[in-house]
Amino acid sequence: MAGEKNFGIYTNPEHDLYGEEVAMPKAPGENEVTVKIIACGICGSDVHYQKEGTSGLNHVEEPMILGHEAAGIIVAVGPNVKQHKVGDRVSVEPGTPCNVCENCITGHYNGCPTLQFKSCPGYPGLLQKYVNHPARLCYNIGDLSFEEGALLEPLSVALSGVRRSGLTVGEPTIVSGAGPIGVLTALVARAAGASPLLIVDINEARLDLAKKIVPGVLTHKTDLKLTPKETAKKLQEQLGSKAKRVIECTGNEAAISTGIFSMEFAATIVIIGVGADEVKVPINYISFNEMTVKSIFRYTNTWPTLIRMIQSGVLNVKDCVSFKYGYKDSKEAFEKAADPKSTGIKTMILMDQE
Amino acid sequence: MAGEKNFGIYTNPEHDLYGEEVAMPKAPGENEVTVKIIACGICGSDVHYQKEGTSGLNHVEEPMILGHEAAGIIVAVGPNVKQHKVGDRVSVEPGTPCNVCENCITGHYNGCPTLQFKSCPGYPGLLQKYVNHPARLCYNIGDLSFEEGALLEPLSVALSGVRRSGLTVGEPTIVSGAGPIGVLTALVARAAGASPLLIVDINEARLDLAKKIVPGVLTHKTDLKLTPKETAKKLQEQLGSKAKRVIECTGNEAAISTGIFSMEFAATIVIIGVGADEVKVPINYISFNEMTVKSIFRYTNTWPTLIRMIQSGVLNVKDCVSFKYGYKDSKEAFEKAADPKSTGIKTMILMDQE
Amino acid sequence: MAGEKNFGIYTNPEHDLYGEEVAMPKAPGENEVTVKIIACGICGSDVHYQKEGTSGLNHVEEPMILGHEAAGIIVAVGPNVKQHKVGDRVSVEPGTPCNVCENCITGHYNGCPTLQFKSCPGYPGLLQKYVNHPARLCYNIGDLSFEEGALLEPLSVALSGVRRSGLTVGEPTIVSGAGPIGVLTALVARAAGASPLLIVDINEARLDLAKKIVPGVLTHKTDLKLTPKETAKKLQEQLGSKAKRVIECTGNEAAISTGIFSMEFAATIVIIGVGADEVKVPINYISFNEMTVKSIFRYTNTWPTLIRMIQSGVLNVKDCVSFKYGYKDSKEAFEKAADPKSTGIKTMILMDQE
Amino acid sequence: MAGEKNFGIYTNPEHDLYGEEVAMPKAPGENEVTVKIIACGICGSDVHYQKEGTSGLNHVEEPMILGHEAAGIIVAVGPNVKQHKVGDRVSVEPGTPCNVCENCITGHYNGCPTLQFKSCPGYPGLLQKYVNHPARLCYNIGDLSFEEGALLEPLSVALSGVRRSGLTVGEPTIVSGAGPIGVLTALVARAAGASPLLIVDINEARLDLAKKIVPGVLTHKTDLKLTPKETAKKLQEQLGSKAKRVIECTGNEAAISTGIFSMEFAATIVIIGVGADEVKVPINYISFNEMTVKSIFRYTNTWPTLIRMIQSGVLNVKDCVSFKYGYKDSKEAFEKAADPKSTGIKTMILMDQE
Repeated sequence: MAGEKNFGIYTNPEHDLYGEEVAMPKAPGENEVTVKIIACGICGSDVHYQKEGTSGLNHVEEPMILGHEAAGIIVAVGPNVKQHKVGDRVSVEPGTPCNVCENCITGHYNGCPTLQFKSCPGYPGLLQKYVNHPARLCYNIGDLSFEEGALLEPLSVALSGVRRSGLTVGEPTIVSGAGPIGVLTALVARAAGASPLLIVDINEARLDLAKKIVPGVLTHKTDLKLTPKETAKKLQEQLGSKAKRVIECTGNEAAISTGIFSMEFAATIVIIGVGADEVKVPINYISFNEMTVKSIFRYTNTWPTLIRMIQSGVLNVKDCVSFKYGYKDSKEAFEKAADPKSTGIKTMILMDQE
Repeated sequence: MAGEKNFGIYTNPEHDLYGEEVAMPKAPGENEVTVKIIACGICGSDVHYQKEGTSGLNHVEEPMILGHEAAGIIVAVGPNVKQHKVGDRVSVEPGTPCNVCENCITGHYNGCPTLQFKSCPGYPGLLQKYVNHPARLCYNIGDLSFEEGALLEPLSVALSGVRRSGLTVGEPTIVSGAGPIGVLTALVARAAGASPLLIVDINEARLDLAKKIVPGVLTHKTDLKLTPKETAKKLQEQLGSKAKRVIECTGNEAAISTGIFSMEFAATIVIIGVGADEVKVPINYISFNEMTVKSIFRYTNTWPTLIRMIQSGVLNVKDCVSFKYGYKDSKEAFEKAADPKSTGIKTMILMDQE
Repeated sequence: MAGEKNFGIYTNPEHDLYGEEVAMPKAPGENEVTVKIIACGICGSDVHYQKEGTSGLNHVEEPMILGHEAAGIIVAVGPNVKQHKVGDRVSVEPGTPCNVCENCITGHYNGCPTLQFKSCPGYPGLLQKYVNHPARLCYNIGDLSFEEGALLEPLSVALSGVRRSGLTVGEPTIVSGAGPIGVLTALVARAAGASPLLIVDINEARLDLAKKIVPGVLTHKTDLKLTPKETAKKLQEQLGSKAKRVIECTGNEAAISTGIFSMEFAATIVIIGVGADEVKVPINYISFNEMTVKSIFRYTNTWPTLIRMIQSGVLNVKDCVSFKYGYKDSKEAFEKAADPKSTGIKTMILMDQE
Repeated sequence: MAGEKNFGIYTNPEHDLYGEEVAMPKAPGENEVTVKIIACGICGSDVHYQKEGTSGLNHVEEPMILGHEAAGIIVAVGPNVKQHKVGDRVSVEPGTPCNVCENCITGHYNGCPTLQFKSCPGYPGLLQKYVNHPARLCYNIGDLSFEEGALLEPLSVALSGVRRSGLTVGEPTIVSGAGPIGVLTALVARAAGASPLLIVDINEARLDLAKKIVPGVLTHKTDLKLTPKETAKKLQEQLGSKAKRVIECTGNEAAISTGIFSMEFAATIVIIGVGADEVKVPINYISFNEMTVKSIFRYTNTWPTLIRMIQSGVLNVKDCVSFKYGYKDSKEAFEKAADPKSTGIKTMILMDQE
């Protein structure tokens, strides 16, 4: 690292997207490591920050470094670090919880009110050449590629959705939305044994891609002239039954209703997608069918599980990185990730390539 | 029974409420019993059928006998009946499922698509002097009073709500709504150890009554000038923390939102109340707090549980029958049950008293 | 069927195994069908009945027809049957519950005290050419082979074990025992995403076969000189961690202890295997690690799930039928199924072949 | 505190029980407080350490201070402590987990392999006048008495047992053993709505005491001449049904078997009691009835729940402190706590009284 310079990919309140030199990280603290980032994916929230200056409840009020889907190599370890050594290939879990609040000690560290999430305002993101991070939140990826390592963050959202759905092997399942999170969710649902598994979108090209990536998945192109109830009926016909689990990845009000209308008595829908602050839901239909509506907020305890899944061959994500750019082409990368006509899954920036 | 005449309490599409002679039931079938009804409560749905000609998805298209909250005495048993004998004092579970469909065999007989529910159009209700019913759906009530026996039906809704909420002993809990179902739900929640337990309504008299009936319950009168978020904050202050479980018994959109805003991370709200077909919900708040929204449709397997609870002294419902009428005063009974200013819990018609 | 003769495979208290003509079934009852059996597997319990005159709590006290793993063709339907027609290819769920007792209506019909299980004493088994059976317990198998259809019964045991284990995708899992049930359990666990998945046995040939049949499975040959704790340590090394789920398919005391010692804090072991009436368990180890020990008794609601899994490609059991015999060679078939040196998975008798 | 001397109650490998001056604690660390202990209960493990030199897996190898059931007053707070101030009345959770290991972050901090549990060898206990402790593990007890505060530790074991049993309101429940933990468990089970609730012991005096303390509890004196199956039958008769939940607080092999034989299909037994390292269990009975055997290891997240329960009136433990001693009478206190003929619930030492 001697003589190396650090470098970060920024946005600002003026919606610029630019690279700039940043100070090299200090020597890692007691339980920290320094990671040289190799691959970092672009998340929808990165695009929202840049294009709209906002994502969820957060706003871009000053220049900030983007990115929270990253893998790299450990180049320095702090004094107390035992689980890592220099040279370890790791994937980074970007959120650091306090570990002692009530949410943390009850297994819900994603609900920690003081969680420090890299790329949220106040916490510089992972689109840097070098970053310090708690050692316990860097996971050895063994023989996974750095790109697979960087995918573990969006896969964590997918895994969390599948876990919360309560899906057990052999249940008829619908994934609503064939964007990056939808396809990754379908992949994890298939790994968990969803049978049959149907993915729904309004975009045929995305469905074609999903079909190539997710083994055995059925696809359905939503006819926008139909009501949610009518579409739900078609989904049930294609599935051969009502759905037991629906995982909703669009946040769209009509799609949520469609998901609900497609379910059987006592079934569960999980809302992953984030859209409007409020949505109308068919509450009587939900009640008369004793349904459950769940939501997720990010994830907990996903990295070791996902690494095991990929290493055991239960999950294959090799075809999920569709576009790659050197860090000097970050602007093009962001344009690609933001392009609604793009049918790729994940766009990545390779921080060790120009 | 020889020489006895049967008699039923009817409504019709013209919104009349009247008593009329009905044919005596035939000799009970193989697994049936004949029950002489003693006490029968008036449910909100009975009032809706009479006043509005409709309840939920059902409509009054011809004269129909009302009532589904009843207890009485067995006066005849069918040839195969072993669990009952003439003279048994029983409470009646009014819905008869098919027992062989997928919902039935998976423990969700409330979702049986061919369930025959007494007092739904097509199935004469229990506001009769004599009815036949499957023996297995009549439960010996031992030393419970007939009025307590008749309360087991609305208590079943309350128990189902508490079960679905996942409430475990010692969790801070809010019951929204202090009408009959709200108060019964609070009673069951208290029996399950909710701590603290807060009941919310817009009507002070109802809250006063709830306070008398439910041991240790806290009460809150909603200030209609406040937003759901503002009310939620007040509820949390009164509770001393955010709520882990909310059981919503009004079906009102603002009350549902209030319930959601009053909950902690990863908490659960159960919707019991039935109102508009669609409601707006603060979906992002739900998602950012990884909450669960559940609903119930009636109940399953509640009678034996409730009888045990009352017999063990865990549940005391002696003060929940507020008004009683002989069957010739059914009209007054329905007026009382329909009166929004009435602060009683349950109005009952005593079919063995004029 | 006109002119056809029926034929059954019997054992008796003298441990004979023989075929004999049986009366053709009567015309099917109201909700019954007549099935022409094509394929029927031999279960360990069939072998126990024949060789030892006993299985579990049941004893062979008079000649009885064996077999309860069967698929065939519907050749007659009763008056009320709607879900089937003559010619349907079906798999038979052999146990008929009463559907109205407390276990039945709470989703535990496997615990029905009056369940009529074909091939248990009193209920002639499915190793017949023709049998009557409730229509709702015959499941259309679509394009599955009859052999796959017959496998659905032992697969139901496997699925039930996996469900009860609480296995969720990506959890490190051990299957103890590589006999027929062990291998089928490993297949279902893999379909549910177990990662990694390790199967353990004392017989290397069985492990080799398991490796061929179960994608990505790890295998371990138990060294009988080691203690359960020592073996457990080796299993953990091979797994790369402690196990979160263990599914025990041998019923052997040492194997149960090994399973327990190989688990992490708060993990779950499911006992499928049936051996001695009592076993010693390391209760303090279980307690100090807050573990859960579960058991299964047969299965509920498995056929539709398994058919979906095979049709969706999530489960592939094509290589699980190792040996096939015409019905005149039933004796050889039973010798093969009983042979401890045999390394096959399932032995089947084809009732339509001599 | 100026001029105060500290003082601890010790045992040693020679089985002595004695008080001795100890150094006053240093100024509390960043997130620590200093607690002046007022009341401290004597646990069975304290007695085991003193009488037998061992408890569970731990051994007395040098003089050690006993006690881990304590409440007191905060007399100093560390620099970062916000939730407490001098003068706060608190109950002490005696085990300090690392908060960052896999068990800690998944909600199982009781399984933390480096948990520091006060009164385990290496960690001086709470039978001292002054101790330092992490602020977040000291809980404000409001208007609870110090004795109630000290009871929160054994109550935590009871609550953990009830939670793990999966008990929901109205289920027939057996508590096996009417010693201190058994009675506290019955109290918590009653607060959770167990109906009916039956407590079993071999000692009539204990059962009489249990009857006084636990509202509505049924009692059964085990006839030692009966087999577990015979006793189980009697328990079922008294309960009016089979048990759905059994919480076993003796660790005795016969009592565990009795518990199992008294349960219904698909029921759950939780083992709290610690006895021999290995026990024989009727595994086939467990399997044929699809039962679940669970265990607990201490507790997690119990203090706030228990404080709420006592403050709401759901739990009344005022009669559970049977014997009190000043610290100079610790020897008598230990004799009382160890006396098998004693029928009290909890023996406490008051550290602020001579």
